[in-house]
Amino acid sequence: MPYHSAPLDLAFYALSDPTRRAVVSRLAEGEVPVSALAEPFDMALPSFAQHLKVLEECGLITSEKRGRSRWCRLVQARFSEAADWMDAERWRATERLDRLELYLDNKEDEGHGGPV
Amino acid sequence: MPYHSAPLDLAFYALSDPTRRAVVSRLAEGEVPVSALAEPFDMALPSFAQHLKVLEECGLITSEKRGRSRWCRLVQARFSEAADWMDAERWRATERLDRLELYLDNKEDEGHGGPV
Repeated sequence: MPYHSAPLDLAFYALSDPTRRAVVSRLAEGEVPVSALAEPFDMALPSFAQHLKVLEECGLITSEKRGRSRWCRLVQARFSEAADWMDAERWRATERLDRLELYLDNKEDEGHGGPV
Repeated sequence: MPYHSAPLDLAFYALSDPTRRAVVSRLAEGEVPVSALAEPFDMALPSFAQHLKVLEECGLITSEKRGRSRWCRLVQARFSEAADWMDAERWRATERLDRLELYLDNKEDEGHGGPV
């Protein structure tokens, strides 16, 4: 489990903002030009560009100029790193609870089946 | 998909620090007294307590005084909210790529089977 991971630090920090999560959600559906990406947000373009910068600097998204537009896309490998960390921890916590339940079930069975 | 979610903002912010992620990892294995939780970290106790405060304020962990010790545990429901968000986005991105692949496969088949 990578505890000291600057990429994870930056990825989770980037995801701590609702605008940036909304951008990630939108890009999970495919590439989008910046203008279309910004459109649903009631936000000045420089502020929106700052959010894209945070996402781009941590490697969660990348962008490319095509003609007059700049297109953004999600970098799925980087997003998966963070999602994998979450899943691994969730799995360990769930597994522990399953073990605890099994232990308590066995203890109960022993109690019932023990000598009278 | 909850875009504007203060709990998600706070949970992801809390997870953007390696010490706090390590605490979450440790607590995924079960309850731990604060003293044992702090032990592996080369950090003054007030700094460590500050990290626990961030985790507790966002609801990812909870703590309880028992005798002379304060015990911490992971709040799995809150952790799962963040993990669910990640999984849902990952699933959408993967599904989109699968659809794209299917489309390209079909297009290729059409090309081969089309009129000569």
